[in-house]
Amino acid sequence: MGNSLGKLFTITSFGESHGRCIGIIIDGCPAGLAITEEALQRELDKRKPGIGVMVTKRAEEDKVEVLSGIFNGATTGAPVCLLIWNKDIDSSEYEKARFLPRPGHADYTAFMKYGGFNDFRGGGRFSGRITASLVMAGALAKKLLNLVGIEVLAHTIAIGGINATPRTFEEIREKVDRNPVRCADPEAAEEMVRVIEKAKQEGDSVGGIIEGVALNVPVGLGEPVFDNLDGDLAKALFAIPAVKGVEFGSGFSAAVKRGSENNDLFIIRDNKIVTTTNNAGGILGGISNGMPIVVRVAVKPTSSIAKSQETVNMRSMEGTSLTIKGRHDACIVPRAVVVVEAMIAVTLCDFAMRAGLIPRVVK
Amino acid sequence: MGNSLGKLFTITSFGESHGRCIGIIIDGCPAGLAITEEALQRELDKRKPGIGVMVTKRAEEDKVEVLSGIFNGATTGAPVCLLIWNKDIDSSEYEKARFLPRPGHADYTAFMKYGGFNDFRGGGRFSGRITASLVMAGALAKKLLNLVGIEVLAHTIAIGGINATPRTFEEIREKVDRNPVRCADPEAAEEMVRVIEKAKQEGDSVGGIIEGVALNVPVGLGEPVFDNLDGDLAKALFAIPAVKGVEFGSGFSAAVKRGSENNDLFIIRDNKIVTTTNNAGGILGGISNGMPIVVRVAVKPTSSIAKSQETVNMRSMEGTSLTIKGRHDACIVPRAVVVVEAMIAVTLCDFAMRAGLIPRVVK
Amino acid sequence: MGNSLGKLFTITSFGESHGRCIGIIIDGCPAGLAITEEALQRELDKRKPGIGVMVTKRAEEDKVEVLSGIFNGATTGAPVCLLIWNKDIDSSEYEKARFLPRPGHADYTAFMKYGGFNDFRGGGRFSGRITASLVMAGALAKKLLNLVGIEVLAHTIAIGGINATPRTFEEIREKVDRNPVRCADPEAAEEMVRVIEKAKQEGDSVGGIIEGVALNVPVGLGEPVFDNLDGDLAKALFAIPAVKGVEFGSGFSAAVKRGSENNDLFIIRDNKIVTTTNNAGGILGGISNGMPIVVRVAVKPTSSIAKSQETVNMRSMEGTSLTIKGRHDACIVPRAVVVVEAMIAVTLCDFAMRAGLIPRVVK
Amino acid sequence: MGNSLGKLFTITSFGESHGRCIGIIIDGCPAGLAITEEALQRELDKRKPGIGVMVTKRAEEDKVEVLSGIFNGATTGAPVCLLIWNKDIDSSEYEKARFLPRPGHADYTAFMKYGGFNDFRGGGRFSGRITASLVMAGALAKKLLNLVGIEVLAHTIAIGGINATPRTFEEIREKVDRNPVRCADPEAAEEMVRVIEKAKQEGDSVGGIIEGVALNVPVGLGEPVFDNLDGDLAKALFAIPAVKGVEFGSGFSAAVKRGSENNDLFIIRDNKIVTTTNNAGGILGGISNGMPIVVRVAVKPTSSIAKSQETVNMRSMEGTSLTIKGRHDACIVPRAVVVVEAMIAVTLCDFAMRAGLIPRVVK
Repeated sequence: MGNSLGKLFTITSFGESHGRCIGIIIDGCPAGLAITEEALQRELDKRKPGIGVMVTKRAEEDKVEVLSGIFNGATTGAPVCLLIWNKDIDSSEYEKARFLPRPGHADYTAFMKYGGFNDFRGGGRFSGRITASLVMAGALAKKLLNLVGIEVLAHTIAIGGINATPRTFEEIREKVDRNPVRCADPEAAEEMVRVIEKAKQEGDSVGGIIEGVALNVPVGLGEPVFDNLDGDLAKALFAIPAVKGVEFGSGFSAAVKRGSENNDLFIIRDNKIVTTTNNAGGILGGISNGMPIVVRVAVKPTSSIAKSQETVNMRSMEGTSLTIKGRHDACIVPRAVVVVEAMIAVTLCDFAMRAGLIPRVVK
Repeated sequence: MGNSLGKLFTITSFGESHGRCIGIIIDGCPAGLAITEEALQRELDKRKPGIGVMVTKRAEEDKVEVLSGIFNGATTGAPVCLLIWNKDIDSSEYEKARFLPRPGHADYTAFMKYGGFNDFRGGGRFSGRITASLVMAGALAKKLLNLVGIEVLAHTIAIGGINATPRTFEEIREKVDRNPVRCADPEAAEEMVRVIEKAKQEGDSVGGIIEGVALNVPVGLGEPVFDNLDGDLAKALFAIPAVKGVEFGSGFSAAVKRGSENNDLFIIRDNKIVTTTNNAGGILGGISNGMPIVVRVAVKPTSSIAKSQETVNMRSMEGTSLTIKGRHDACIVPRAVVVVEAMIAVTLCDFAMRAGLIPRVVK
Repeated sequence: MGNSLGKLFTITSFGESHGRCIGIIIDGCPAGLAITEEALQRELDKRKPGIGVMVTKRAEEDKVEVLSGIFNGATTGAPVCLLIWNKDIDSSEYEKARFLPRPGHADYTAFMKYGGFNDFRGGGRFSGRITASLVMAGALAKKLLNLVGIEVLAHTIAIGGINATPRTFEEIREKVDRNPVRCADPEAAEEMVRVIEKAKQEGDSVGGIIEGVALNVPVGLGEPVFDNLDGDLAKALFAIPAVKGVEFGSGFSAAVKRGSENNDLFIIRDNKIVTTTNNAGGILGGISNGMPIVVRVAVKPTSSIAKSQETVNMRSMEGTSLTIKGRHDACIVPRAVVVVEAMIAVTLCDFAMRAGLIPRVVK
Repeated sequence: MGNSLGKLFTITSFGESHGRCIGIIIDGCPAGLAITEEALQRELDKRKPGIGVMVTKRAEEDKVEVLSGIFNGATTGAPVCLLIWNKDIDSSEYEKARFLPRPGHADYTAFMKYGGFNDFRGGGRFSGRITASLVMAGALAKKLLNLVGIEVLAHTIAIGGINATPRTFEEIREKVDRNPVRCADPEAAEEMVRVIEKAKQEGDSVGGIIEGVALNVPVGLGEPVFDNLDGDLAKALFAIPAVKGVEFGSGFSAAVKRGSENNDLFIIRDNKIVTTTNNAGGILGGISNGMPIVVRVAVKPTSSIAKSQETVNMRSMEGTSLTIKGRHDACIVPRAVVVVEAMIAVTLCDFAMRAGLIPRVVK
């Protein structure tokens, strides 16, 4: 229950961190979309840990395999099943600490909800590794969106208190892949790397903020009053582990603005109605207004830290302490950038299909 | 499309601001729940404009009527249809400005999406008035949650830059109804009133932040990886017009914290596992962890302001300006408090039913 | 739970037989569809009891009211709420026999499922009267289908053992409304009337078979492997009380045919691929094949009969007998014909929208 | 789109007949259900072709593999992915006849719907082979139902015009696996085998009828007015290729009965309310009534026959003829018996979960 998302473009996630595989089924993908394993792999590789500081121990050589739904280089209209086999798994540490929930992790809630039957190894279903399945779905979704001219971008705008200065979409598009923190502001990026390194040396971790942008979204996506574009984007983004907040346009800063400041005025430009500002983040009344969709997600600092932390033994119900072994990402923000893109793309795809924008057969 | 929410406890909204009525259908409400029109009315009255500054022109004497699903003072297990007839409607101003979209409103997106066929009067489906239907559903949901000991509270924590100091749940419960801004901090409340009055006098408006809290939520609500408790709460809250951001626990501030600060440590208290802090806002891995659910929503300043604003004529495609007539709320935050409670309650109800917590027949 | 049907064109039913009203919400209806209360009323009137033998006691002057979603004579894209107020209600007989379930009715199952809280008067949610809400939804659906050239017809082909001889679609279209049993074969119709009269005189009832047909359905509707066109049509048709079987094309008779007889051969006619026969009933692999959709539903004899029947007292748990008062339809088949049309239309509409055939704004 | 079924116990099918694999994801299966690959395999083996006449060429050594959701011998609460790798595939015949749709098959509708991009080899998604995925899901569902005492049985009651005499549930349970046609009447079974052999020798095929039964279903499953137990069972059963009709209890024969004959009278037996007959097939008003659920499905004769048949070339749009190579089942009824069981089990499981009968953690 709860592992499917989307109404017409529906993704279903399965697999565990230390199980046999991580997979995703995309149901509702139009037939005729040309796609190769290489293209899927390229997208997945963006989720790889970056250089130096961001490397995790596990050498996740995630290799996409197509199990169904793609034939002769194109989607068939049948469910597309994409899969990554898990390799290089060492679950010994998890076996030892099985009853000691890691602070900030889902170990405790999963244990309680599933009566201890959950696959706890590596966090099981609650591992960041699950996001690999989202990225594969996102790769297909982006391809479809490209057909109708929609582009999805994401970039790091803050890490550990270091904020990037605003950049144009062109700059974001160009620069986001040029540094390990996926920030379009090179100076801020360098500082962010230092902040992460420092946290890592201290056995600690840092969080940050990712901004997602969708360009050329036509007016009219979103199905109020409940299936709002912002509401469904938010739901999709909260599926990314560690996300604790989502805001659109002026977001929380709107709370301190006057209406006269926050309202985006309508004007005509190139014979089209646009707004002079974009405090709405491209969404009015739950419906896209033709301006860029702008959403920001708050990512909490990695829960797995090297410092000893207080916890409990869930079986004996006694207090104890836990030191998490292994080299975990001191900041997952950079790796989450492509996941943010994926969730935006998947959601927009679903709405574009509901609006009849994407045909059932692509030619 | 898009006007239903929830899987087992499903609400379907209908009606327009200046149409015949505003209504809601609650499907999936267990049979045997004792409920009176008076109880529903009491909840609905909380949405009424407050004293002085917050009064809107329209004397919305919203009176709940039960059309179906309640018999002999209890729910029957059939769909509950609750309705408010619209009265005191004057649509003349809207007719005049039909093709002039109000900045910050959904006039433009609705016009484009529905090809100009939408009922534009009073904002139609995009009016804040629609939230009356949500509050009626929330009244039923709260009743059900009470059966299993869950309590939902909301209160204003910021308006126009004035922040309330944190209060205990007891204080919130007691004080939130004692002032027109529904803030548990009396001093801040007074300042908030002044800020609203000032904005009003200047023909402007202010926004704010509402915090929602759910107490005694058992461990285990939420259906990862997509139907997360936080994700579905966020989606439900974005159905409230003017909400531009949603965050849980430490939220956006988590982005500037270290993992060692943000992780909530597990301890045993009264033979139960609890956390020493609640930066998670009661949700770990998309599942409730037994701590209070804490969510905050950013509410933008009211879009309808008395100042003249630049806009366009959607038919003639020419620029023009618009001065919105009528006395609109200079701040909708206070009236939205009960709506936040409603959306939290409706969402929790659905998850409690998925988890099998609420029986199909209440006795 | 369970009172909504359809994915994009979604109907939600509410109301009880002896409650305040019977209603339906149609969510997902494209904007711009011209519709009048008169047109809706005309369709609803087809559900009226016919002349002579088929009259029920209750003078159901069902009058459609539009509560929402229609503005200036056209749909707005918002949920359309249609409603009939209940009048002329006498629940005294039901109060008396409250704990005595009528054989063949849902009195017993509803009592058990809803813990006795169900509105039992007149069968409550399980009354044939609920089908009035389906017919209203069907009226809208037919209008939409007409836009893309799809026509839905239904007619009685058997009552009480009297079988109509097969007729052309033209004959069905012309003759079905010319007799009280809605049968396109006038001679059979006369016999059917006699059979019903005889059953009525004997305090008994008869059942029959209705055939539904959809013409000009394009190739490609249906979403295998689960959302098959036949599967969803069947589900929709089983929502009609008293339906006990559904078959397509050769249906149950296929079980006694050879493959060489049952296979429909493909040929080219007018430069289109068609089949020489239509044993498939227009559906291959769950997808429409361009031939007429042909479905038949078995309707059981009316459960309410004047004869004394054995039953039990659900409270005292003792055997007793029951004689149902009032003049009930001795055969509901004729009145169910328009309901069959409605459920076919509603289902086809949903699939046509999924396939992108019907635009979101009708012009 | 359309490849998922169920609301709380949700199955998602993927894979193609001649692709890499056939798979199913079961989402919503409670945690803690003990299950082995052997148990799943045993169930799958029931779908194997029987002895002699029923053997297909393809030596389908279908071997279940668990990809996710089962850990330490029990379900984890996460999605269960079960898979069969395809082997022994020869697609050459399909390549040759790619544009020649086989009469009675989905070749034509799939080609049209998916613009020719569908994987046509072996029928792709429309192959009977897809039912292997349903059987795997059914195996899990049966296990869950057993926990609450519900048993699902199916048996052949007619093949090629040979009808079995009615048998008790005990006889069905015992005898159904003792002959290759899965008929509980040994004499009829022998005749059925002869009928199939004869059809095969003549290059032809025969259809039949399967009856499904569910025992010990408690009163109250089903969610009227749309999510009726009969409606959802019918939808699930129409997912089985070749099913052309579904009826419950007296089914189509109810159309020729009087109400006094067809009504099942209520009596008290062993202090429980039961009916003297079961013309309702265990379902009243869309809700189970505690009597055995009895459903019958009409299975058309196998479409693939050895005789030359008229068809068209979909590319050149010219008439032609087609002789289907390979040894196909002359009757698929026996192999479909376990599939009928599976679809009944899957549907009952979903409703049992909606009713709160099956806990979220099994102990």
